[in-house]
This record gives sequence, C-alpha cells and structure tokens, in this order.
Amino acid sequence: MIIIIKRNTPASKVDALVRDFEKKQFRTHLSQGENTTIIGLIGDTSVIDINSIKAVDIVEDVRRVTEPYKKANRKFHVDDTVVRAGGKKIGGGHFAVIAGPCSVETPEQVVSISESIKKSGANFLRGGAYKPRTSPYAFQGLQQGGIDLLRAGKEKFGLPIVTEIMDISDLAYFSDVDIIQVGARNMQNFRLLKELGKLKQPILLKRGLANTIEEWLMSAEYIMSEGNGNIILCERGIRTFETFTRNTFDVSAIPVLKKLTHLPVIADPSHAAGLSWLVPSLAKAAVAAGADGVMVEVHNNPAAALSDGMQSLTPVEFDALMGELRGYLKLEGKRLD
Amino acid sequence: MIIIIKRNTPASKVDALVRDFEKKQFRTHLSQGENTTIIGLIGDTSVIDINSIKAVDIVEDVRRVTEPYKKANRKFHVDDTVVRAGGKKIGGGHFAVIAGPCSVETPEQVVSISESIKKSGANFLRGGAYKPRTSPYAFQGLQQGGIDLLRAGKEKFGLPIVTEIMDISDLAYFSDVDIIQVGARNMQNFRLLKELGKLKQPILLKRGLANTIEEWLMSAEYIMSEGNGNIILCERGIRTFETFTRNTFDVSAIPVLKKLTHLPVIADPSHAAGLSWLVPSLAKAAVAAGADGVMVEVHNNPAAALSDGMQSLTPVEFDALMGELRGYLKLEGKRLD
Amino acid sequence: MIIIIKRNTPASKVDALVRDFEKKQFRTHLSQGENTTIIGLIGDTSVIDINSIKAVDIVEDVRRVTEPYKKANRKFHVDDTVVRAGGKKIGGGHFAVIAGPCSVETPEQVVSISESIKKSGANFLRGGAYKPRTSPYAFQGLQQGGIDLLRAGKEKFGLPIVTEIMDISDLAYFSDVDIIQVGARNMQNFRLLKELGKLKQPILLKRGLANTIEEWLMSAEYIMSEGNGNIILCERGIRTFETFTRNTFDVSAIPVLKKLTHLPVIADPSHAAGLSWLVPSLAKAAVAAGADGVMVEVHNNPAAALSDGMQSLTPVEFDALMGELRGYLKLEGKRLD
Amino acid sequence: MIIIIKRNTPASKVDALVRDFEKKQFRTHLSQGENTTIIGLIGDTSVIDINSIKAVDIVEDVRRVTEPYKKANRKFHVDDTVVRAGGKKIGGGHFAVIAGPCSVETPEQVVSISESIKKSGANFLRGGAYKPRTSPYAFQGLQQGGIDLLRAGKEKFGLPIVTEIMDISDLAYFSDVDIIQVGARNMQNFRLLKELGKLKQPILLKRGLANTIEEWLMSAEYIMSEGNGNIILCERGIRTFETFTRNTFDVSAIPVLKKLTHLPVIADPSHAAGLSWLVPSLAKAAVAAGADGVMVEVHNNPAAALSDGMQSLTPVEFDALMGELRGYLKLEGKRLD
Repeated sequence: MIIIIKRNTPASKVDALVRDFEKKQFRTHLSQGENTTIIGLIGDTSVIDINSIKAVDIVEDVRRVTEPYKKANRKFHVDDTVVRAGGKKIGGGHFAVIAGPCSVETPEQVVSISESIKKSGANFLRGGAYKPRTSPYAFQGLQQGGIDLLRAGKEKFGLPIVTEIMDISDLAYFSDVDIIQVGARNMQNFRLLKELGKLKQPILLKRGLANTIEEWLMSAEYIMSEGNGNIILCERGIRTFETFTRNTFDVSAIPVLKKLTHLPVIADPSHAAGLSWLVPSLAKAAVAAGADGVMVEVHNNPAAALSDGMQSLTPVEFDALMGELRGYLKLEGKRLD
Repeated sequence: MIIIIKRNTPASKVDALVRDFEKKQFRTHLSQGENTTIIGLIGDTSVIDINSIKAVDIVEDVRRVTEPYKKANRKFHVDDTVVRAGGKKIGGGHFAVIAGPCSVETPEQVVSISESIKKSGANFLRGGAYKPRTSPYAFQGLQQGGIDLLRAGKEKFGLPIVTEIMDISDLAYFSDVDIIQVGARNMQNFRLLKELGKLKQPILLKRGLANTIEEWLMSAEYIMSEGNGNIILCERGIRTFETFTRNTFDVSAIPVLKKLTHLPVIADPSHAAGLSWLVPSLAKAAVAAGADGVMVEVHNNPAAALSDGMQSLTPVEFDALMGELRGYLKLEGKRLD
Repeated sequence: MIIIIKRNTPASKVDALVRDFEKKQFRTHLSQGENTTIIGLIGDTSVIDINSIKAVDIVEDVRRVTEPYKKANRKFHVDDTVVRAGGKKIGGGHFAVIAGPCSVETPEQVVSISESIKKSGANFLRGGAYKPRTSPYAFQGLQQGGIDLLRAGKEKFGLPIVTEIMDISDLAYFSDVDIIQVGARNMQNFRLLKELGKLKQPILLKRGLANTIEEWLMSAEYIMSEGNGNIILCERGIRTFETFTRNTFDVSAIPVLKKLTHLPVIADPSHAAGLSWLVPSLAKAAVAAGADGVMVEVHNNPAAALSDGMQSLTPVEFDALMGELRGYLKLEGKRLD
Repeated sequence: MIIIIKRNTPASKVDALVRDFEKKQFRTHLSQGENTTIIGLIGDTSVIDINSIKAVDIVEDVRRVTEPYKKANRKFHVDDTVVRAGGKKIGGGHFAVIAGPCSVETPEQVVSISESIKKSGANFLRGGAYKPRTSPYAFQGLQQGGIDLLRAGKEKFGLPIVTEIMDISDLAYFSDVDIIQVGARNMQNFRLLKELGKLKQPILLKRGLANTIEEWLMSAEYIMSEGNGNIILCERGIRTFETFTRNTFDVSAIPVLKKLTHLPVIADPSHAAGLSWLVPSLAKAAVAAGADGVMVEVHNNPAAALSDGMQSLTPVEFDALMGELRGYLKLEGKRLD
C-alpha cells in the first residue's frame, strides 16, 4: 500500500504517522521526492480501511499495490480450479452448457425442455424456482415446488441442476441442488455469501449490475474465506447508458478474470442481451473470449412464459446454437462432456 | 400499456392477439396507422411481464403508459406522507437531521458523539452495528452489541435511533430501533423487503448503486404491498464513470421523487461524496432541492475510525454545517424540531 | 409517433392539438382508453423535435415508433452495403484487418510495421497522423508529415491506408487517404460529418465514448444525408463504471447494428481494452459476434511508442492473432482478401 | 509519478529502467519493499504518455501523483479568477444569470425574451444560433443570422451575449459575442480549443457527456496553454443509466472544481434536467453547492419552440425562480450585478 503525503508536510508529522503504522506491525519504506513524500506500507494490508487512512490530515492519497483478494487470486494459485457438480466438471478445459427456462412453471414444461436441451447437448439444467422480480405484483416463482420439479427433471434425464437462492432461510430446500446460484442483486448480500461459504456445494456467483471485477472477486473471497472454494463466476451484463440491450455484456470481463483468478468463468448471454435473437452471437463471443461455459434460457413457448420470454430461445433455436458452438469449442480446445 | 405491432402483420394475427388479451380480462383499443398498428391495453397491467409480450412474434415493442407502482404513487395519494419515529416527524415540512458514526465502536464514542450532535441540533442518531463491507477481512461491526450501545445513547439523550439491517434473521434485535435502514446493496433484496413490510416500524430505504428511480419506487412498493407504509427514501449517490467522488450524488432524484411519490425523501451526502470536505455543499444542495432530511456521518476522531473515516465530519465541522443549514431550511419553509 | 395525453384532459384541448398537427400535414389517429388518450401521428416525424411536443401542457409523454434514421436503416435497404477502398472490399462477407501503429513516428517504423503486418495477412494499414490527446502537453502526431509517411507505406506494400481527421481545415491533406477515420470524440461533430458527406471516400465512423447505438446511426445519417453512403461503423468501447479496462467493449453492438443497418461494422479491440494482452480475446469475440473487420494497433517497440504503447501488439503477437482469427473467419464464412 | 514494478523482477532490469528515465532528465527515487519495488519519477511528467510506460514488460502499474493540469490548477494559482465579459464579472463572488432561448428564432422572440429576463434580473443573454442536433433533419439554427439577432438584443437591452460555436470556420462571426460557448459534444474538439486559446474573449466550456472532471480541466488547459485564461466551466449533466432525467446533474462537480481550480464554475440546470419543472430545484441546488452562475433556458412559448421546449421556463416561471435565487445568493454571499 502506498500513502502519498501532502506537499509541505513537516517531517515530524510524517515520522509520527510512520511510527503509528509500525506500532500496528506494518513495515514501512519512506520515499522522499522533490514535491512528494511517499510511505510504502508492507504487511497484510487487506484488513486496512483505506478511507480511515485517507482521513488523516497529512495524507493526499492512498493506493493499494496488491489485490485485496487472496484465495481467489491466481498469483497464489496458478492452476485452474475445476469445479465438480453432479458428476460433471467445469473449468480447466471442461465446458458447461447450462440451459433451461427462466422460471419453472409446470412438470410438463420441465420434462419437455429437459429432454430437448439434453438432446441438443446441454450438460446442466437450469430453472428459476425462487424468482427475484422488480414488481411485487409479478409472478414470484413456484419456490419449493419449483425445486421439486427440477429434481424430477434431474432424475429422469441425468442433468445436474442449477437454481437460484434468494434468502438464507430457504437453504434447507437446496440440499439436492447441484449448483446454487447467487443472482446479480445478491452479489453483495454478504450474509448470504458467508452462509454459502460453509457448504460444500458449488456456488454460481453472478456479477452485480454495477459491480466492478474487483468487487466481484471480493464477493467470491467472502465465500472462500469460509471454506467453500467451489465457485463459478458468471458474467451477465452490466448496467450502462445503452438501453437497446437489457444490459451491456462485458465480454472483456471473461479474459480479465481468467488472468486474475483461477476460478472458472461462464457467461449468461440471455440476461445480458434481453433479446433472444442476440443470444447466439453473444454465446459464440463468450466462447471466443475464453469462457468455461454458457447459461442460456430455453423455453418451449417463449410468448407464454411467465417471465422473460423475450430472451428465451426455442428448443429449435437452441439446437442450432449448439451446432454452432461446437465449432468454436473445438477452436478453443474445450471439451463438452 | 401500448403494444406496437410489426409492419406488414396480417390482420388475422393481430385479431388473434387482441382476443388473447380479452380472454385475460383486459380491454383493448386498436389504432391502425399507415405503417403502424397499435394495441392499447386497458386494465391492471401491473401483473404483466412485458418481456413475455415482447416475445410474441408479431410484436415490435411494448411500452407502459402508467407507472407500475400504485401505493407509492402520488397520483393516487396526493398528500405528503409524514413518517413518525420515536416521537419525531419526517416529511410534510418536518426536516430530519440524522447524524452519527459510520460504525458504532465503543460506549464512550456513542455518548460523546450523541452529546455533541444533539447540541448542534440533530434530531436522530445513526450508527452502523451490522456493517456491509466489500472485504471479508474488514471490520464487520459490533452487530448486536452495537445496537445495545445505540440504545444506551437513545436513553441518555432522547435521540431516536436509525441503524441498518443486513439479514432477516437479525430482525429480533431491531425491536427497539426507531427507523430500520435498508442499505443500497439490499435495495432489491425482495425477501427482506417483504418481511419489513409486515412490521410497523419506519423503514429508511436507500437507493441501490445502479438502480433507477422507478426500480426504487418498486422496492418501496414491495414493503407497502405487505402493509407498512412508513417509508423514507434516501438518495446516497449512484455509480457512474466519474471516480473523483465515491459516487455521483443524483440531486435531481430529490425533486423527481417529490413529484412521483408522497413518501418523504432524504439525502446521505456522506456516502455520496466519500470526502468529508464535500459533505456541507451537498447537504445544502439537498435542502435547496427539496429534501425532507439529511443523514450525515460524524466521528469524534475520523482518522481512527474503523470504517469510512474519510467521509466523516468532526463534531466541530458538523456544528458549522448545522449553522448553515438553518438558513436554508428557513428559505424552504422546513421545520427542524 | 405516439403522443400520450395527461389524465382528465378536456376533449376540447385534445381536439385542438389534433387540429394543430393536421395543419402541419400529419395524419392522426385517436385512441381513447379508460384513463389514457393516445394520439398516433402519421407522416415524416423525423423533423419533429420531441421536446417541443412534450412541452405542450396536456402531453404526458411522446414516443417514437419508427427509427429516426432512414438512409442507414436496413428496413429500407435490405442488402449489406459493401464498401470499396483502395481495391479492397469491406462488408457482405469481406473481412477487413486494419493494422498499424497508434501514432506514425518515423519512416523506418512505418516500413517495418507495414511489411510485417502485410506478411501476417492484414489488408489495410492504419496509423495516426493527427492525434487527439487529452493533454495539450502530449505528442500531437506528425500531422501532414504523418500522412506522407503512410502514403509511402501504401506505395511500397500496396496496403490501402486509414487515418483520422480532426478538423475540416485539414481535409486537403486527405485526398490520398483510402478511408478517413472519424474518432470517438468527433462522432457528434456534425459540421465535420456534413463535410465528409460531400466526399466520395469511405468514412470509418467510430462510436462516441458515451453514445447510444441510435445516436451513432444518426451520425452516419448526417454523412449519408449529404450523399456519401460509404460508411464503416467501428465499435471501440464505451465508458462505464468499470475501470480495469480502458473502456467497456460493447460486443452486443455488433449484432445489434448488423440487424438495424446495412452498413459494415468493425471492431477496435485495442482502444476498447487498452491492454495488449486482452486484444486477441476481444478480436476473436468480435468475429464470433459477426464483425466485418477488426482494427488492431501493432507497434515494433510498444514500450518506446509515443502513444498508447500499452495497447499495442508486437508484430509477433499480431502474427499469432492472425493465425487464430483465420479459424474464426472460416466458421463465420468471412473472406480475408 | 509512481511506477510499480512486477514481483520477482531482477534488479538489473530495474536498474536499466531507472537509467533510461535519468537519460530523459527525470530524477528517480527507488523504494524497495518485500514484494514490491517502486520507482518515484521526479520532474515534468505531464509530457509522459502513461500507456507507454505501462507497456514496459517489468512494469505492473503507473500512477500520477500530481495533477496533469497546471495553468488551471488552484495549487499554483490560489485566488479565484474573475472573468470579465461585456462589462460584467463572473467569479470571485460575482454571480452570473445567463438566460434566453435554446434557439434564436425571430427578432420578436429575442426582444420579448430579452426584455423579460432583464426585468427579472438576468445579467447575460444566451441563445443558440448554431445548433448541434442529433438528427440532420432537425432545425439547425439560424446560424449567422441568429448571431445578428442576439446582437440586436444586446444593443437594445445592454445584456452581454453568450452563444455556441460549432466549428473554427465560423469564428469570424463571433467577434461581437461576449462569451463564446463550447458545447458538451465539442469539449474534446482539441483543434477548436486551441484556436479559442488564441482569442481574448471568455470561453464558456461545457462538460462533455461522459467526461471526467480531470479531462474537463485538461480541456481548459488546452485553451489556457495557448494564452487565453478567461474560462468559465459549465456543469450540464452527465450520461448515466438513469433515464428519467435527460442527464444526471453532477452537483458535486461544482464544489470539487472550486477546490481543484481557480476558474469560475456555473451550472446549466436546463440541459441537465431536460424537464422545465425540475429547473428551479436544480438551480437552487447549484447555488447552494457554490456555483458562480446559472444558465437557464427561457422561452416565451415553450410548446412552439423549435428545439428543447420541454426544458424551457416561461418568463413568468423564470421570474419566480429569480425571486427564490436571491435568498440563496444572500446566504452564499454572492452578488448579482
């Protein structure tokens, strides 16, 4: 950590600050320039609240040199993490195609979609049971009953299931869920993250609407710091001034994360785009950028879907996309198994 | 709700869609232009998922005409809501000054700050007991013990208290809290909002980092739809490309909300700015823009604060700010009592 | 165009507004709902200033139904535009690889880079002669002399050249430039766009830092409305809250534009990323998303570059990228010739 | 400037880089931490392109310690600059109220509006002659004729005039203009800025849609570096995800600029809001935040305005606003003369 001292600060005040840090067991290095004095702080600075140091009257600015995340940091864990879920692998060359309806609606719907996505090559089934909806008057999901329907789909077709948790109090219903999803709005629900850190199940952590890549890794760190290292990061678009698309798909986040962390990174082009006709282009772009998987909404009748029909592919469209993706996976040396 | 039909759609398909809506008990109006056919949908459209209608193949676009929030809408509730908390009023001409430390740290700190802010004219005491922190390694607040310290401050100085809840499971400790704060990161924690809707205590609902004014009102609607209409909205800055300030204080949100809703609206210049020297300017601007209150961080020793020292005023600075604010409150016809 | 009338407006006022529009030669359609009256306006609404209509006291809101751009609109020009420049084609299946240094510096540099990029397969040479720099104290480019150096490169290696114009007054020096680039900061320099509209040379129009896709197409419309239809759109990243990358590469803009317009669309991953190690991933993602070309910075010695070294590939890195791109172009059915 | 070296870099490579900087006449300071080596660079770093240094293979990151602007920097010019224009002063306690129509339309309009705003207390007349419009099909302003009409207003009512320049080639028509405005879209039209730097007339420099405060000051620096120090900065809203308002008025920019620079800072609440009913709240907030002036659109018949009627006040509304502003100016100790 680098602490830049204000111009014309008396040496005695700088000394006092240095001694203060040394009392707190940090080592320091002083660099004296013409106009600028800089204190380098050495030790575990991850516990420091930068804003308290900035509040010191002689301090001009404070900057971190090392990333504030440790367990998620590729510098300290060079090899790709391979997450195992329901007999499948994600990361380290293993590609995940997680498909299914935005909301679980009926047994017939789950069976019909599961059957078709499996035929097309998906290796995971997704479906919303607990649905975060902007309006209290909108359909809130089948909840516990929705998880039951997914479980039936899993038994019949052998597809591990992925579904979203909204609150700690529902955790009991998630024991058979293969991958527990944390939605964008809960990316910084730190209490939820801590509880999930005590589990062994893999966590699919979506990026928050307006969260930086560093904040996202800090949320992964929350889960990892409690002991659960099975995390899959999922880029799903960020909020910008552009309104043509529902969100702006930050495709750069994929290669950036692959460099910063050892955790697998997947993409959700359906939520990013909000428009079904955009999904195939974004899914292919995600593979080209190095993603370890994609999560795609598929619905047998998008126009009658109880939520987000507009961004769902039909089974036929999904099958065509899978055909295209195979060529891209081959170029990138990824296995879909 | 207006549904715009794609060019060159056969009339039979338009008719089928119209009949479909009429079966669902909506009334319709058809407007036939040269290039454009428009269906007007009449009835309670708040239950409709716009994205499902957009997914219909003949639909070009769908737009709401009426706001999706009802209970929070000033159109259906013309008079200002006055929220009562701990014997004080907020809204309808009553101004709230909520001051105190970012984090509750020690009994001495709470007593010292409470005493000084009361002398300066604050009418509420704020303090963080449960602290949402980006890093799992940072100080997480005194939690239950922090609420006890705030309660002691309340008893000694008669200041009603405001503190943040992070999770439903902590609700039991909040029975003596006068105003329960929902932080920016939880603005769309819908399960938490619903639970708070079952209480009678006032809820201070902060705006999410990247949430629109309409989404914010929909979150208020979540609480109100469960029965609790005692809501105070708090603008605390939004996330933009500008990084000089911690967030961008959206001062326009204040007069916009005063027009759209009957609920009181306050401002948190400390979190918006992230820099203590900016707080007085923003607090004055908030009053000028029509705010019903301000929430200001005050710390007796900002440089030693366990969190966010950089944005905290000292008691002396806070006292000076209060002196300035009085002139502004007079101009705006607001009472501080 | 749809005009939504405020609730409880007397019919006589609505009639007056309708007559007003009819006097201006628009046809109207009135749709009367329970709470909502809507006027549909039919005719050439592109000349209307929406904000003037919104200023009418009885108007609640105004919304366009048809896109405000015409000549750039694929609805009225279904086939892909193929731009011809210096004997090469862009669009309609023809892929452009435009490579070269951020700034033109020396004759040796231009020769060396031209030779290597040509060998690797680039079909256009780019280089900055007039450089828009944030600081007046930074290197401003060789200007006219820079164009001379590029022309030499063109003669020696047969690569058509692409370079940026900053001001109308420099137009005389651009007569031999094959494609004239308009930079992000000039996307809404309407006077410059109009002048370029009077030329026959192709214009490469970069997206502004914070401009919507619709505004971008309106800027293309400025050029086209003066008679020059040879326009190539170039996505180069938008400004968002994320600061890890220089800009956020909006990969979705590529398929969105391919749907909305017939003009060719290319990507500039170098400026989008600002980091050379990210360029290959983004270039591949651009091809996967349907781009008609990429524009890549290549420098023989990035660390000594007078500008933007950090985002430049070395010739060796560029050659490796070209090897990868060929596989992607094949999948997408694009020709590089 | 601080250069952070990558971990595990051999000392010999660090030495080579240090010698390289010393050859370029910079002094250096080396700070050696446990994991981190930092080079402090001393000298005039404003000429350095940070991205070139970041491109050096052993460099992890580079950060400026001193602001890149000099002439605009309050650190080197402590006293407020007072700009003089047409016999009036702006800055240093002198408040400017610049009012008038978005577009100049007819002689009668200019006379009528000038008369009423003068009576209400405005001390400058604004009006658009050259209009930057998103659509080539929209009214582009009366251009040279518009300036003539403004000049007539100036002669009759003694109000100095403010109008926007769009291109260097029009400069000849601006000789009688008291303050030349650079619009948001031209904030980084560096060639235009340089030409304006050679004049003596004051320049009103609006903030770009998506430009940081630092970039804005660098644009002022462009003008100042050519010799013209008469610059007024004008906050007019930035582009964010919020679409209820036309732009997001960044009220914090006002006190931030007052700290960073000695130049006067004014606000344009009309363009920031885009909605006339919001203008008074934002104008008052601007004064409360420390602005040296406001620029307000006033139109005698907003609903018939050829541009931006929606954000224009009527003369009656403007008069009411002036009444309110006087109380605020008194509190802030500002003179309107």
